[in-house]
Formats: sequence, C-alpha cells, structure tokens
Amino acid sequence: MVTTRSLEDLDAHSYQEYVATGQGLVLIPAGATEQHGPHMPLGVDAMLSRAISLAAADELDALVAPAFAYGYKSQPRSGGGNHRAGTASLSGQALVLQTQDIALEFFRHGVRRLAVVNGHFENYQFLYEGLDLAVRQARALGLEGSRAMLLSYWDFVDEDTLAAVFPDGFLGWDIEHGGVLETSLMLHLHPDKVDMSRAPDHPPAELTPYDIFPEDPARTPGSGCLSSPAGATAERGELLLHTVRSGIVRAVTSEFGK
Amino acid sequence: MVTTRSLEDLDAHSYQEYVATGQGLVLIPAGATEQHGPHMPLGVDAMLSRAISLAAADELDALVAPAFAYGYKSQPRSGGGNHRAGTASLSGQALVLQTQDIALEFFRHGVRRLAVVNGHFENYQFLYEGLDLAVRQARALGLEGSRAMLLSYWDFVDEDTLAAVFPDGFLGWDIEHGGVLETSLMLHLHPDKVDMSRAPDHPPAELTPYDIFPEDPARTPGSGCLSSPAGATAERGELLLHTVRSGIVRAVTSEFGK
Amino acid sequence: MVTTRSLEDLDAHSYQEYVATGQGLVLIPAGATEQHGPHMPLGVDAMLSRAISLAAADELDALVAPAFAYGYKSQPRSGGGNHRAGTASLSGQALVLQTQDIALEFFRHGVRRLAVVNGHFENYQFLYEGLDLAVRQARALGLEGSRAMLLSYWDFVDEDTLAAVFPDGFLGWDIEHGGVLETSLMLHLHPDKVDMSRAPDHPPAELTPYDIFPEDPARTPGSGCLSSPAGATAERGELLLHTVRSGIVRAVTSEFGK
Amino acid sequence: MVTTRSLEDLDAHSYQEYVATGQGLVLIPAGATEQHGPHMPLGVDAMLSRAISLAAADELDALVAPAFAYGYKSQPRSGGGNHRAGTASLSGQALVLQTQDIALEFFRHGVRRLAVVNGHFENYQFLYEGLDLAVRQARALGLEGSRAMLLSYWDFVDEDTLAAVFPDGFLGWDIEHGGVLETSLMLHLHPDKVDMSRAPDHPPAELTPYDIFPEDPARTPGSGCLSSPAGATAERGELLLHTVRSGIVRAVTSEFGK
Amino acid sequence: MVTTRSLEDLDAHSYQEYVATGQGLVLIPAGATEQHGPHMPLGVDAMLSRAISLAAADELDALVAPAFAYGYKSQPRSGGGNHRAGTASLSGQALVLQTQDIALEFFRHGVRRLAVVNGHFENYQFLYEGLDLAVRQARALGLEGSRAMLLSYWDFVDEDTLAAVFPDGFLGWDIEHGGVLETSLMLHLHPDKVDMSRAPDHPPAELTPYDIFPEDPARTPGSGCLSSPAGATAERGELLLHTVRSGIVRAVTSEFGK
Amino acid sequence: MVTTRSLEDLDAHSYQEYVATGQGLVLIPAGATEQHGPHMPLGVDAMLSRAISLAAADELDALVAPAFAYGYKSQPRSGGGNHRAGTASLSGQALVLQTQDIALEFFRHGVRRLAVVNGHFENYQFLYEGLDLAVRQARALGLEGSRAMLLSYWDFVDEDTLAAVFPDGFLGWDIEHGGVLETSLMLHLHPDKVDMSRAPDHPPAELTPYDIFPEDPARTPGSGCLSSPAGATAERGELLLHTVRSGIVRAVTSEFGK
Repeated sequence: MVTTRSLEDLDAHSYQEYVATGQGLVLIPAGATEQHGPHMPLGVDAMLSRAISLAAADELDALVAPAFAYGYKSQPRSGGGNHRAGTASLSGQALVLQTQDIALEFFRHGVRRLAVVNGHFENYQFLYEGLDLAVRQARALGLEGSRAMLLSYWDFVDEDTLAAVFPDGFLGWDIEHGGVLETSLMLHLHPDKVDMSRAPDHPPAELTPYDIFPEDPARTPGSGCLSSPAGATAERGELLLHTVRSGIVRAVTSEFGK
Repeated sequence: MVTTRSLEDLDAHSYQEYVATGQGLVLIPAGATEQHGPHMPLGVDAMLSRAISLAAADELDALVAPAFAYGYKSQPRSGGGNHRAGTASLSGQALVLQTQDIALEFFRHGVRRLAVVNGHFENYQFLYEGLDLAVRQARALGLEGSRAMLLSYWDFVDEDTLAAVFPDGFLGWDIEHGGVLETSLMLHLHPDKVDMSRAPDHPPAELTPYDIFPEDPARTPGSGCLSSPAGATAERGELLLHTVRSGIVRAVTSEFGK
Repeated sequence: MVTTRSLEDLDAHSYQEYVATGQGLVLIPAGATEQHGPHMPLGVDAMLSRAISLAAADELDALVAPAFAYGYKSQPRSGGGNHRAGTASLSGQALVLQTQDIALEFFRHGVRRLAVVNGHFENYQFLYEGLDLAVRQARALGLEGSRAMLLSYWDFVDEDTLAAVFPDGFLGWDIEHGGVLETSLMLHLHPDKVDMSRAPDHPPAELTPYDIFPEDPARTPGSGCLSSPAGATAERGELLLHTVRSGIVRAVTSEFGK
Repeated sequence: MVTTRSLEDLDAHSYQEYVATGQGLVLIPAGATEQHGPHMPLGVDAMLSRAISLAAADELDALVAPAFAYGYKSQPRSGGGNHRAGTASLSGQALVLQTQDIALEFFRHGVRRLAVVNGHFENYQFLYEGLDLAVRQARALGLEGSRAMLLSYWDFVDEDTLAAVFPDGFLGWDIEHGGVLETSLMLHLHPDKVDMSRAPDHPPAELTPYDIFPEDPARTPGSGCLSSPAGATAERGELLLHTVRSGIVRAVTSEFGK
Repeated sequence: MVTTRSLEDLDAHSYQEYVATGQGLVLIPAGATEQHGPHMPLGVDAMLSRAISLAAADELDALVAPAFAYGYKSQPRSGGGNHRAGTASLSGQALVLQTQDIALEFFRHGVRRLAVVNGHFENYQFLYEGLDLAVRQARALGLEGSRAMLLSYWDFVDEDTLAAVFPDGFLGWDIEHGGVLETSLMLHLHPDKVDMSRAPDHPPAELTPYDIFPEDPARTPGSGCLSSPAGATAERGELLLHTVRSGIVRAVTSEFGK
Repeated sequence: MVTTRSLEDLDAHSYQEYVATGQGLVLIPAGATEQHGPHMPLGVDAMLSRAISLAAADELDALVAPAFAYGYKSQPRSGGGNHRAGTASLSGQALVLQTQDIALEFFRHGVRRLAVVNGHFENYQFLYEGLDLAVRQARALGLEGSRAMLLSYWDFVDEDTLAAVFPDGFLGWDIEHGGVLETSLMLHLHPDKVDMSRAPDHPPAELTPYDIFPEDPARTPGSGCLSSPAGATAERGELLLHTVRSGIVRAVTSEFGK
C-alpha cells in the first residue's frame, strides 16, 4: 500500500509495486496560472484541482500526478482574459503535447486507467485533444487497454448543492471566476491563501456572447473577478468539495470499476 | 458595390475594389462534416453557419468567405462523438493552423475587420487559438489595426425565441445536436436536404459529465441525435434565423462600427 | 443505393450503409481561393475539382467529400502569385495536416479506396505528403488495406483534346491560369459565374524559370491571367470535361477495380 | 513589497504592482518527474530547483514561478533512463513550447529579467531552445529589452564545497543521480521526504560513453541511483544550498544588475 | 577576396569580411539521397546542384553553402519512388524547417541575396515554402531587404541544348531520372563516380498521370532509371553545364544586380 | 562487398545487396556549419565526424551516410555562440525531425543497426530525441529489431591520449572549440584546410556557468576559439583519431555484434 497519494512524494520502487497490481489509477490535476482577483492567489486552479484529486484518490486508491501548473489562455468569457498581468498561459499546441506525452508515459508504466481532473475552463478542449492522441498512439504502440477519462470538477456540482451555495440564485458557470464557488473552495482548502478583506464586491460581469482579438480590457471588471465572492464561506467550500468528490468517485468507479 | 456576398463567387478585381474602401468586413463560416441523425445531411454545420453569415452579410455590407467544411473532432457530449461513420474531423492543430493562415491572408489583403461565425460547438477553442495567433502575427508583420471576432451562432438565441421554439421547455444547448434547433433552421434554409420521415423520436440523451477515451459508442443514441427533432418546423427555423441574424449584426456593428 | 453523390448532402445512416458494402470509394476535391482574372470568381479551383469529381462519381459509384476550399500559396509561375488580393492560402503544414487528418478519417470509417482530385497546381506536393502520412498512420493503427490515389485533373487531357481546344497550338500548362482551359470548363459547368465581357485579352505571360521572395508583382500580368481566355467556349469546356472524366474513371477503375 | 516569493501564492494585483516597478525578476524552476532511487521521491528535481529558487529569490527580490514539474526524457548517462517506471517525461518539442510560451508571457506582463533555474540535467538544451525562441519572438512583437538567463544549479557548486561534500573524492556530475548531492540537499530541505533506511549502497554505475535505442535496462543499476547516497547528510545539503544560492545570486546580479 | 567558393572550406573571419562588403551572395545547393540506377551513386542530386552552384559562383562572386544532402520523398513520376532501397528522404515539414532556418541564418549574418539551387525535383515546393516563411520572418525581425531566389537547374536548359543532347528527340523532363541528362553531367563533373558498364538500356518508363499510396513497386523499372542513359557522354554534360551555368548567372544578375 | 564506405558514392543496387545480408550497419555523421576561429573552416564538425566515421567504417564493414552539414545553434559555453557570422544553425525541431526521418528511412531499407556519430556538442540532445522518436515509430510500423546508437567522438578520448595531447594539462572539454583537439585532428585529416599562420594564441576563455538571451558577444573571444590551438600538431591528430576510432569500433561491436 502506498504511503502517500501524491505521486511526486512517492519513490519509484513503491510506485512500481503499486502499478504492478494491475489496478493502478492515476489522476492528473490540470490547472493554470491565472489572475483570480485581489483576494486569491494566481495558482487557484492548480490548487483546487489538486486538492480535489487528492480527496478523491483516497476513496479510489489512486495516485495524484504533479499538477499541470500552466493552462490554456484565459478568456474574457470565463477567466477574465489573457491580457491581464499575472496570467501566464500555454499555447494550445503546448498543452496538447504536454497532455499527450504525459498520458502516454503512464500507459507505458503499465497504468491502464488515467483521469485528468480539470480546474481551468479554457483547458478542456486541449486536454481532450491530448488524451485522444495519447490513446490513439498507445494503440499504435501495442499498449492495449489504455483508457482515460477527462472531467472538470464543477460539472459534478449538483442542483442541491447549487441551491445551498447560491441561496439567491445561481447565475451561471461562466461568471464563476474568482466568485463564490472558487473562493469557498479555497476558504475550506487553503484558508491561509485567501484574503477576504481584499475581496471585491461588484455586480456580475456582463459577458458578450462573442470574443474579440486583440482583447479589449474593458470587457473585464477591474477586479479580475467575473462575479462577487462576497457570499463565499468555508462551509460552502466544504459542501462543494464533498459533492464534487462524491461525484468524481462515482463516475470513475462506474467507468473503470472499483 | 459587390454583386454577391459570396467571396468564392466574386472575382478578384471586384474584391480588391471592395477592400480598397477601407471598410471591408469578411465573415468566415466554420462548420464540420459530422453525422446529424438519419434525417439530416453530414454538412449541416457548414450549411447553417454559411447561411447565417450570408443573411448577416447583407445588412453588414460584408463578404462571406468559403466555409470551413471540416471541423474539430465531434464529442459525445455535444455532437455524438467522433467514432461515428460519416463524421470526418480535423485534429486540433490542423484547425488552428487553417484558422491562423486564412485570417492572416485577409489581413494581408487589407481587410481589418474579420469575424468567424461558428456552427460546430467543438470548433470554438481551436478557432480562438487560431485567431489569437493570427492577430499576434499580424502585429509582428506590421499589419496594424487587424481585428477579429469569434462567435457561435446559437449564443445569439434569446430567451423569447427559446420559449417560442421550445414551448415545452428548453433542455440545454448540449443536447441540441440533430434536434429542434438545427432541424428547424435546416427546414427553413434547406428544406430539400431534410427528410422528416426519417427523423428519430426518442428521449433526450443522458449525457455524462465527463469524457472517456477511447470513446464508448453506447454513450450516444443509435440515431446520432442527442434529442428529438420532432418539434422542428420551418417557421421555428425562420424565427431562429431572424433572431440570430439580428444579434450578430448588432454585435458586429457594436464592435467594428457600421 | 445512395441518393446523392455529394457526401455533405447525404445523411450518416445512408453513408454507413454505403461503406458497409466494402466497395466504398470517396473522392476529395482539392481547390483554392485564388484570383482567376476579372472574368472568373475566386472559387474556380474548388468549383472545377468538385464538378469533375461529381461527374466521375456517377460512373464510379463514388461519393464526393466536401472540397478543400483553401489551397497552398499561389505561385507566379502557375497561379499569379500569392501577393494578389483575393488569394487566401494555407501554409504547407496546414494543408498537409488537413489532408492527413481527413484521409485517415475515411479509412477509419471503413473506406479503403480514396482519391484526391486536385484542381490547384500548387497543392500537389502537400496533398502528396498528407496522403503518404495518412496511409503510413493507417498501417500503424491496423487499418489494413487503406489505399489512396492523387491526381490533378488536367493531367488527363489528351493530345486530341488539346488540339481541339487550342487550334492555334497549346502553349503549356504553366500559363493555363485563368486562360482557355479553366474558362471553358467554367463556361460549361458554371456559366452564370463567368463574365466574358470582363475577360482580358493579352499575350501569354513570360514566365521566369525561377521564383523570388518576396514576390515581385511585376512578374504577373495586371489581369491576373497568365494567358488570354479569349478562345474559351462552353463547347470546349464540355469536351474537356468529357475527356477528363473518362480518363479519371479509367485510372481509378484500373487501380482500385470496378 | 510582495508578501511571498511564490508567484502561485501571490494575487494578481500585488503582482502587477511588483512588475510596475520596472525591476521585476522572475525565476522559473525546471524539474522533472523521475525515479530517484528507493529512498527519494519522484519529484526531487522540481523540489530542489524550486527550493533553491526560493532561497535565491529572497536576496534578489525576485518571484518564483510555478515549477515545470515534468522534464525531458531521463537518460541512462545522467538519470537512469526513461524506461523506468515512475519517470514521466515530455517530448523535446513539448518542453520547448512550454518554455517559449511561459517566458513570453512574463515578457508580456512587463517583466524584463527572467531566469530559468534548472534541476534536471536532460532539460537544458530544450530550455535553451525555448528561451532563444521566446526572446526572438519578444523582439518581433516589440517587447524591447526582454532578457533571460538559463542555469543549472549544480554548475554553481565550487571546488571547496565539492571537497567538503565528497571527502573521498568527487567522481563526476554524470553519476550524481540519486547520490550524495541530491540526497544531501533533500535531507536539508525536505527531510520528511527522504527515507535513508531504503537508500542503496552500491559502487558507482559504469556509464558507457554512448546511448542506445531502445534503451537497455541493464545499463542502469536496479536501484535507479547512479552512485551511492550513503555519504549524504543534511549538513552537506545545507552547505551545498549555501554555495549554490550565493553563486546564483552573484551571477544574476552580475548580469541583470541589482 | 575569398580564397574558395565553398563556404564550408572558408574560415569565419574571411566570411565576415566578405559579407561586410554588402554584396554578399550565398547559393545553397539542394539535393537528395536517392537511387539513380546501377551506374550512378546515391548522391547525384547533391553532387550536381553543388557543382553547378560552384561553377556559377565564380562568375557571381558568390559563396556556396553546404548542400542539403537529403531531400523530399522520391516520387515514382519523377524519381522512381520512395520505396526503393537507398533512397533516404525527409518529410515535408523537416525540409521546410531546414530551409527556413538556414535561410534566416544567412539573413542574420547580413547576407541580403540568397539563392537555392535545386537538383531534386520533389524538393521544389518545400524549398518554396521554407523561403517564403524565412523572408516573412526576416521582415518580422527587422532584417530589411532580405531577398531570396529559388530555381531548379534543369529549367535553364534551352531548346538548342536539348536538341544537341537528345538528337533523337527529347521525351520530357519527367523521365529524366538516371537518364541522359544527369548521367552526362556526372560523366563531365564526376566521371569516377559513374560506371557506364552497369548502365541499363531499356525503353522509357510509362508514367501514370497520378500517384498511389502505398506505392506500387511495379510502377518503376527495376533499374531505377526512368529512361535509358545510353546516350550520355561527358561532352553532352559539358554542354549542359555551360548552358545551365550561363542561364543561372544571367537570372541571378538580372534579379540581384551584379 | 561494397567498393566504397561512402553511401553517397555507392549505387543503389550495390547498397541493396549490402543491406540484404542482414548485417548492414550505417553510420551518420552529424556536424554543423559553425565558426572555428580564423585558422579553420566553417565545416570542421562535419568534416571530422565524417572522417572518423569513415575510419571506423572500414573496421566495422559499415557504410557512412551523408553528413548532417548543419547542426543545432552554437552556444557560447561550447562553440562560441550563435550570434557569430558564419555560424548557420538549425532550430531544435528541424534537427529532431531530420534525425527522426532519416533514421526511419534506413530502418525501412532493412538496416537494423544504425549509429549517429556526433561532432558538434550542441547537437546531442536533439539527435537523442530524433533517434528516440524514430525507434518508437519503427516499432509502431512493425519494423522490428530496429536499433540505434548515439555517440560524440570526443567521449572516446581516453586519459592516456589526453595526457599525450595536452602535456601541460587538459583544461576541460567545454573550451575545446577551435583549440588543440579539433585543430590537431584537422591537421592530420585535412591539412590543406588549416592555416596555422592565422591561429590565435590567447588564454582559455573564462566561461560563465550559465547562458543569457539574447547572447552577449563579449562572452566569446574575438577569435572565436575558446582556447588556443597553438599546441596542435598533425601527430597529435593522428593519435586522437587512432584512439577515437578504436573506441568507437569497440563500442559498436560490443552493442551490435561483429
């Protein structure tokens, strides 16, 4: 039995024994380095996807690989836009290649069950492409049975939880950047990294149904948040974590078996 | 004044005069070759994005470039999945390069206002990356003032229209593949290409909140539709077209001026 | 039996039945968006390769995939050069990837016989590379028996036809850009898209036996045509189409069987 | 003044103020996920390069970006080889693109002084290429004055320190994988992540002066270490850290000014 | 004045003086490693393009860069096909990048006049793409005035020379692989590398007007030659060299000045 | 038996017979076009790796493929830096692709034993990546048993030889650019290409333990040499060649059998 769920903290010999059981399952958290308002740090997306992965790993007897600390370009309609200082992003091709390479490495080790746990909206399609190419390449190289899952953690928040976290009504995932969802999770998981005294409180951003290039800074609130984090609490974060972890565990078990 | 809105039908000399006005605006429809159930053809996404672009072009004095007839891989949560016969898709990198190259060509001609009108959900992030790279490259090459927009046509359907088109309630964009929205638009714009006698009628697909690789064919209804097109009518298609065209015209005018 | 030769107009279920026969044959027209003089539209190359593909498809029981509407950069020695307004071209890598991706998709469907019908001289080597990589990749993925052909339609014009179409002598394929060949075919296939009142009449371009970078606009006649289309007639277009279609049908049958 | 040296823990507004001083300096640690014997975790290279960067950052008033947690393929002559379980590596191109993209992002923010602090031998040339391309691209985009440094931390260990750490004689950098150097640094910086009871003790690996493909597992000792870590102590780690930090601070100050 | 026309034989200091005159001109020969029948070596294309470049360099006061020894995939319609043993070719992308990189390097040195002298038919489009990208990149980097030419040496053989070299009539460039043209040039330039006693004598290959994938070995004569080299002589080679050199010198002078 | 060790001088039919024995071994020399001081030509690295390969080939019954005449960017810490005039280098990706493509071609011919003989320090990691990808691709394509070696010739200089060549003490490989090692080998192998009257004589360069971007010309001595070639003699070159050839022959035989 492994002594830690964190792959980077595990030694290679123990890892090899873990994989040799044939039941190995690796979760890869995918985050970003992206502004999240004045009250939260740049690393929120990697911190949350990693913490959620670790929480799920205990129930799944899985290992959590080092997080992807950089993600695809932040967009104004979901993350404030890539023009903001502090946001440091990969091109699409860099993220695709990274995902493809690393997934294929775990398949090479003998891991046959892999899941990428996404914490940055803009990543999804590039992670998808990377996993698709990795699984195809695994087949060409004779690594039969290599399978992968891709999920974003917020897709596991159910209606009841939404109602509890947003008692005044949920306004949509698109404006949940630096808002109640992420801030609550951070308050529960990394309270020392949040400074609620700096949290902005302004109306939700009015998002346009399109994007423009080069980006127009006026489209994003000065705070960098797309909605107010004022309603965030550690309790709500705990509830969100519980819901998300349960949902992910159920989904992974359902697809990959216990 | 140009005699057609369709760039491929226009001669180069007339095009050059059009661009020389300094007010040139080019719309690029982005579609796909993708199964859309037994009642609709594989080319739906390119047909609709092209028809909508042409409708908007009249009001905008714009030209419509040849459509991107192939799109990014279809996904089970929005298009039925790329494992289906008939769906012929590009890799992410191919779509990014195509978008980047073609956008840069129009900037080279002197066009300074460009809009990609997307008709295939899975394309969006790759079109985004292509436009971002093109605008950046334009700047490096001294093509000052080159600007682009990116939009998906369904993002311009408003609440009133949704209520009219889905009198029993709208169940979400994700299952609108081969359903009432696309079928209605096709019935209005290309009635000869729809065979309602072959339209399936089954409950909406129950989508999982994640993706798996390799794809599991059981996740997609045998019809290839994610919801029933039974409620589709040409009248609803006309209403949708009207709403979408107006919205796009307003958005483009608002960003790029008249 | 399929009800249309045009893949984009066919539904996926009918397509699947067609492929399931094991005799599926798909033709992919490859064109360009390129200036063709003041009398012809920018889409000539895609229009002609598509029309020729459709004509051959009837005899071959084949399907015609959506045309590649954008091609490789126009060159002064065959197409007037890529500096001209209206010409919107792909980089080599974009065209290679597109060809490779789409060919592989048809192999994945179960199609084992594929032909790219080229209508833009500059495309050839990039289409070649794309097909070579696709067939190699198909082998790596276990898609045994996947085969492809590549042809340019003008390579099937025989001596008798040349003599009939160019009674004053044929001056070479290199200057047949916007000249008698293409214009005649367009007059036969798309008469409404040609305006002979705008056709230039000037001596053939004197091509240099080399290329220069950046391009020198003085190398190309102002009209954009490399020779005069004055001798073009719909009858000559019909003859050309007949010859080309017969040659392609014979070639495909000879390689792929009936 | 920033409240943390760790960029991922800093909020974007504070970061922007830091950069606005015009004196911003960002250090990017580059590590790997690579076997380091039975006594040390897979994340050693990222842990050490990050810890060393943080130590230097205090003296340099610099910020430390999120570490590159994955590196180029491990090689038998410096890291045991990429065939080992647990080692999860990037292709060269993925690492080059990641480096190029992220460096360019910091230049875009206004940072003009950047240093990559490498902790994995095999990374060096790919980091070099990435920085070379980023600086070239910065010039093309008008980001004048953008400069970068690249260094591997062990290149700052001086002769005196070597003599103190290896009292029986230093046998060369190539076999210092999982040996006294890395283990001592880990014992000083992350003692809880080292288990000396599992440390192997065997003669140094006899490295061949060449590489072979596919790799021959027999070339690497079963332990995964290329030399014995038996002589490692936290005191030696402290000495190494002190030397390396001082050297890096001197080098950066010398090139970039104070 | 430089003491050799061969760049690889020149020292860097002399090269720098040469470039500093502002009149530097560099010729890059582009060849291939490709079967050329039983009587000629695999390196013919690089040998000939290099020898022709050297001959022209004397008159042009130019330098000849190291030849591209590997070319794009041999094709049955011009070189016998890439399936033959001995033919070792680059992918299209590798040749494009090599051309782009090396051309840009000479521009960086201060050379403003560059010419690629091609000796392998299949290379042309990829060399074209590489030069186009290099010149574009040079502009982005501020290397103003960077210009390049691209030519294939056989395009400078005039009618008189053809009549003299092929007294029985010239059958077309496509079958001139391993035939009279190349063999004559080799007999004149590298007589020790030709063994006429092994020269095949068979009718010209009957080329199909299309290509197939994977290649069909039956399309190429067993000798690997597409026509008989029986009529080759050193005298004809001398005449060819004279014609080609004069033509190239005239062309380069005409474009780049004396 | 082949009549030459130089692949480019061999005809394809003889090559095919050689490969058909099943014992084929191909050596690929990898050089660069790089300044080597005022006394030596730009092509030193390709000349030496090729000459050493030819010397070893005789004993190994191997063939020597055309050398890679262009290498990865010269670096100040090993080759003087890529900013110098005369140095014309490939990007990393171009060198990786070239290596991958060409290695795979020899595997396709039936060669199962391949060795790249490197003569330019900066190439190593990119050659490594190319061979790794080629061997992986060979496996995917069913070319079983394809194996490759990679070596740099100086890694075979033993202690005795070092002592003889550097009687005053060896100062390290990093400064052996344009110094005694390369100059001695050139004096032995290509005496006509060395002009000792132009050889600089200055103290060894003091290399920094890091790199900077953009390069600082002041880091490299004006001569371009990193140490003085004053002690170079043809006799020392002969000794070096003897040692290196023997070492390479032993290594190749040991891995690949006789």
